[in-house]
Amino acid sequence: LESELARLAALYPAVIVNGGLGPTRDDLTAEVFSRLSGVELTENPAALAHLQQWCERRRFELNESNRKQAWLPAGATVLDNPVGSAVGFYLEYQGSLLLATPGVPGELTAMLDGDVAAVMQARFPLAESRFVRRIKLFGVGESTLQQRFDDNQASWPSEVELGFRAGAPLLEVKLEVSQASQLDAQSAAEALLRDWFGDFIVGDDDASLAGVVVQALGEQKKKLALAESCTGGGIAAQVTAISGASAVFECGVVSYANRIKHDLLGVDAALLEKHGAVSEEVALAMARGVLACSAADYAIAVTGIAGPEGGSEDKPVGTVWIAWGSAAHLHAAHFCYASTRKMFQTMVPAIALDLLRRHLAGKDAVPDYYRLRRR
Amino acid sequence: LESELARLAALYPAVIVNGGLGPTRDDLTAEVFSRLSGVELTENPAALAHLQQWCERRRFELNESNRKQAWLPAGATVLDNPVGSAVGFYLEYQGSLLLATPGVPGELTAMLDGDVAAVMQARFPLAESRFVRRIKLFGVGESTLQQRFDDNQASWPSEVELGFRAGAPLLEVKLEVSQASQLDAQSAAEALLRDWFGDFIVGDDDASLAGVVVQALGEQKKKLALAESCTGGGIAAQVTAISGASAVFECGVVSYANRIKHDLLGVDAALLEKHGAVSEEVALAMARGVLACSAADYAIAVTGIAGPEGGSEDKPVGTVWIAWGSAAHLHAAHFCYASTRKMFQTMVPAIALDLLRRHLAGKDAVPDYYRLRRR
Repeated sequence: LESELARLAALYPAVIVNGGLGPTRDDLTAEVFSRLSGVELTENPAALAHLQQWCERRRFELNESNRKQAWLPAGATVLDNPVGSAVGFYLEYQGSLLLATPGVPGELTAMLDGDVAAVMQARFPLAESRFVRRIKLFGVGESTLQQRFDDNQASWPSEVELGFRAGAPLLEVKLEVSQASQLDAQSAAEALLRDWFGDFIVGDDDASLAGVVVQALGEQKKKLALAESCTGGGIAAQVTAISGASAVFECGVVSYANRIKHDLLGVDAALLEKHGAVSEEVALAMARGVLACSAADYAIAVTGIAGPEGGSEDKPVGTVWIAWGSAAHLHAAHFCYASTRKMFQTMVPAIALDLLRRHLAGKDAVPDYYRLRRR
Repeated sequence: LESELARLAALYPAVIVNGGLGPTRDDLTAEVFSRLSGVELTENPAALAHLQQWCERRRFELNESNRKQAWLPAGATVLDNPVGSAVGFYLEYQGSLLLATPGVPGELTAMLDGDVAAVMQARFPLAESRFVRRIKLFGVGESTLQQRFDDNQASWPSEVELGFRAGAPLLEVKLEVSQASQLDAQSAAEALLRDWFGDFIVGDDDASLAGVVVQALGEQKKKLALAESCTGGGIAAQVTAISGASAVFECGVVSYANRIKHDLLGVDAALLEKHGAVSEEVALAMARGVLACSAADYAIAVTGIAGPEGGSEDKPVGTVWIAWGSAAHLHAAHFCYASTRKMFQTMVPAIALDLLRRHLAGKDAVPDYYRLRRR
């Protein structure tokens, strides 16, 4: 570890090491940093204060193993960890900046956005400042966008650089210019993007489908109810992950058993018998049922086959019916997404939330969603 | 990119590059690899076949942008992508193995476990084989374990190396030996671990709390119902993520509004009025209610304050009551986990599932859970 770190430090102006800051014997980062830079490990007062606070908030006794986390290389500066017990730290080594952060993903992410970004920005101010605008889309693929740009290169402002980052489920488009004087061109590019794909735009930067839906419901002072089968509470979990959801979210019913579709949601047993649980009729009846048993204004209902079991010739794995809207205006659509259970449970909640997002924005045309839609 | 890749190739026997394989113009990995190794980009038949199959399964037309993904450096070998449209590939460059994989996390993970692992293992057979046993625990922290080992070093077989990996919410303990002849010592170490922390052990390697609960219910031919408030469907989502959950999962009710606790779950309005929604009485009533309206044998009910809003002096953010068990044996416990909404919604479902896991295993003692329990 020591020689590897020395090698990287000789090559790069900064090295970020993740992990190895925990309370156990196999957590060696502080020791490796101190040996490499030839300084002692000492009990760092800032790290100790953080640990003590962390324990106090949890009414823990600080034990010896935990206390080890406060021993850092002499001269190291602490990087705050807003989530966990282990602080990070950094020090100079032969002209390179060596940073240590915890490896637990939630802690690492919080620190990268916090102290690590601050230290890096102070040390490496961007020679040429860049102006980046990020826009999140759902329901249209990278290749469709690229094709559209290729077909319309003449109208695109050439100083705006276009970038993509495909996530699951959102696609991020970056519009980047290098000077403040090009911000008008950036706005023109954004207008073009909105003109081409406006209905697919979920929002800026940190936008999420659930976030946009919760916000729209809040603005309209309306409430939402959910009836989920194959998505198993995944839509409810996404909605309630949004802080403030309690103002707009009434209830969710996860009706795995047909009996529940009948008993709790009032879906007619004859309907279930005649059309099967995965059908337009049952999706609509589930939505009506959850609207009836709650005080909600809008509902989403989903019934489908996530797989890997449960498919048939007629209704293969991936088949799903989604109903959405208000009691007065209820819609339903049929999709087939044959993939893993995990991908199904990522994509189908996203489609369901997007359909409601569009509905709340007054757009009722149902897109093809990467050609998953069946008619 | 090219010079950076050349530099890494000179330093390391293998370099794995993630991302830049998509259909858009800013996806440059294939081009960089081909320029570095001085070979042309050609349409790779295996990659094209993969793309065509991928499109066919989705009833897509293969467009020009997508087709770009089949253009790989001449002589490159394709790495299968079981999830997405872009294949990976690898080639030799001056004695180093250069591998390219997609950057989308779900695709990358699938490939690392698949073709990438196979290629790496073939190229770099482990000189000294290691025998690793991984065990997943919940409810006990790294530092508590380390302390226990420190206090009992004499009884620990010295040839067994101990490692930890803290995840959220499970903790992984690794027991590692270097020779087959030490497997007995490894078993002895595992027995010691089970002796000390047996109730905290969830299972091996890929074990999850929801997976263990679904399996236990299946073995006992019992069914589960959930009544969630502050966890917002997160428990249902974890249970239904397990393939085969439909055999044991009856229903979930996400009762955000008090009205729903009353109307759907039959929680007495006077109880809600008297004790408040976040109380032992209401948690127990929610569990009884969801058992009554389903055909389930076991229930979990959760009511609490995820934050950041909604706390009070009496019931601060993080306060939660969990009820679990069968109609005949219903238990309740009180915790306080003051953290972010996200961490609350990670940890509280885990505690709830763990309480049921213990109950199904006949262990009804409630642990302190990192001292989150209140009495």
